[in-house]
Amino acid sequence: MSEAVRVVVLGTGRMGSAIAELLLEKPGFELAGAFARRRDRAGMDLGLALGRAEPLGVSLEGDLDALLERARPAVAIQATCSRLVDAEKEICACLTRGIHVISIAEEMAWPAASSPECAARLDALARANAAVAVGTGVNPGFVLDTLVVALTGVCAQVDSIRARRVNDLAPYGPTVLHSQGVGLAPEAFRAGVEEGAVVGHVGFPESMAMIAAALGWKLERVEESREPIVSSVRRETPHVAIEPGQVAGCLHVAVGFVDGRPAITLEHPQQIRPEAEGGVTEDAIEIRGRPDVRLAGSPEIPGGVATAALAVNLVPRVLTASPGLKTMLDLPLPAAIPGGAGRG
Amino acid sequence: MSEAVRVVVLGTGRMGSAIAELLLEKPGFELAGAFARRRDRAGMDLGLALGRAEPLGVSLEGDLDALLERARPAVAIQATCSRLVDAEKEICACLTRGIHVISIAEEMAWPAASSPECAARLDALARANAAVAVGTGVNPGFVLDTLVVALTGVCAQVDSIRARRVNDLAPYGPTVLHSQGVGLAPEAFRAGVEEGAVVGHVGFPESMAMIAAALGWKLERVEESREPIVSSVRRETPHVAIEPGQVAGCLHVAVGFVDGRPAITLEHPQQIRPEAEGGVTEDAIEIRGRPDVRLAGSPEIPGGVATAALAVNLVPRVLTASPGLKTMLDLPLPAAIPGGAGRG
Repeated sequence: MSEAVRVVVLGTGRMGSAIAELLLEKPGFELAGAFARRRDRAGMDLGLALGRAEPLGVSLEGDLDALLERARPAVAIQATCSRLVDAEKEICACLTRGIHVISIAEEMAWPAASSPECAARLDALARANAAVAVGTGVNPGFVLDTLVVALTGVCAQVDSIRARRVNDLAPYGPTVLHSQGVGLAPEAFRAGVEEGAVVGHVGFPESMAMIAAALGWKLERVEESREPIVSSVRRETPHVAIEPGQVAGCLHVAVGFVDGRPAITLEHPQQIRPEAEGGVTEDAIEIRGRPDVRLAGSPEIPGGVATAALAVNLVPRVLTASPGLKTMLDLPLPAAIPGGAGRG
Repeated sequence: MSEAVRVVVLGTGRMGSAIAELLLEKPGFELAGAFARRRDRAGMDLGLALGRAEPLGVSLEGDLDALLERARPAVAIQATCSRLVDAEKEICACLTRGIHVISIAEEMAWPAASSPECAARLDALARANAAVAVGTGVNPGFVLDTLVVALTGVCAQVDSIRARRVNDLAPYGPTVLHSQGVGLAPEAFRAGVEEGAVVGHVGFPESMAMIAAALGWKLERVEESREPIVSSVRRETPHVAIEPGQVAGCLHVAVGFVDGRPAITLEHPQQIRPEAEGGVTEDAIEIRGRPDVRLAGSPEIPGGVATAALAVNLVPRVLTASPGLKTMLDLPLPAAIPGGAGRG
């Protein structure tokens, strides 16, 4: 990119901050502003909010419309929420002004999975304003969908797909741990699943729909199960300690049926310290077909930095895309953008 | 695709035949004709040429211009050669008529690596005729370049790349075996490298240039080495048998230098029966950066079917691309197209 691209970040939590730091590192970008939903952060200097010693001279804004009018960015990266219903208003505020949107909201990876109506609205608004909206992230958005689809490109025929992502929740705080039932007794875990307090992974409907669409498969139904990963040893993190018999996390599995048979199986056990019982973190994809394709890597691609990187690396792709609501399957591959803290 | 896409195949060797078979399997395509460079095959029925019991009613044509005029295909898949200088005339015959070209010629994976002038000519001709030309294949075209680049998408920073493809030449005949020096004494192998008879892998300059371009790296030079893989045991295939002390294949390595350091290392040992000495075939990619990314699979993605599949799976992507000379990096990911011998 010959001239720095003006980008604003929506959200100043863990992910929004990581994205802002990355934009500041790369010479191809100008961080033109940041939107904070939390009113108590509005007015803070972004540098201080990022934990830097020096202020950056960029204040967090609590009024998104005012920020967009003032900053006039080419691209907004949204890192404020997971759900489409919660993301739509901010996305529309950008698209109305012809500002491209890259969202890491999980449901934006394949918006039609949760709301075809919202997807249609976003597509129409983007086209009307010559803008692009697209969702990305490590998962959904890459490991259990985009990368799977990319690997099917070498197949003359695909019979079934199994993909598995095993991670370690040790770095995460109470919100994430609660959502996976960490520390509960097995019965309380099951009650939590019933009540919706234990949610497991957010993104299977999106990944399923993406894979099926890419392969031209008609997905008849998706069966999801959430089982407790009961620890047989003590496991401890900075945020929680569990005893033998307590729940270390959630084994969330989704099975997509095509032509009456289980064609797509996605597994995402999320737990603290799997290595405590000899487990390893990994990403593993297995395609059965002509040919079979197997690819796996350990440790897993770390979610935080990967999601921030995908969002930033996607900027050049949205700048050259045709207008509308896009997915990772519609755009050329994002690649790492040079520059930054290392030699790039 | 709502209507079958008319496709012609250029070349009726091992790869051209595999591509023709795949097009015949898939309901989305109509095999509109086939071009045979070998004059002794012209006029043969394609079905019989493919080894089928029944004729297909499609004759192999030896006159490419006549074939294109008669068949009026939307897309031509070229599987006649490896080198750009050898591929250009046929590609131009298609582009001039507004016919898209997907080529598996190795040098077409990144034409500017062998001839920037030819790449510029093809791009201008494609644009002038609203057509697309693109190269693909398992390698170059996928394992040691496109897939590597796809994985960098999760990286905030890339320091270095190492990728390795280990295959087994056992299925291959004399032409391929000679090109890798199989059966030679080590001294004869080295002489063969000097004289150009032992070529190793065709495609490293293309893969190197593709990765560097995707990452915005300036490639200063590429150092290639071709070393004999000397067998310590007897190894035998349907086409050759070698004794201990003879060459089982060629360890071809390319190292790309950026900022004076080795930034990209690509290894492709090609030999017969690596398992005879405990070796395994595999594809392995290792990116050092933020984060590190490692992904590997064994056995390796088989070259023949994968190259045919990539060429066919790319058809929908060229139909919706903007005109010009493209690479795998410019188009959305190809995915397996449904239908075929299995359940698709």
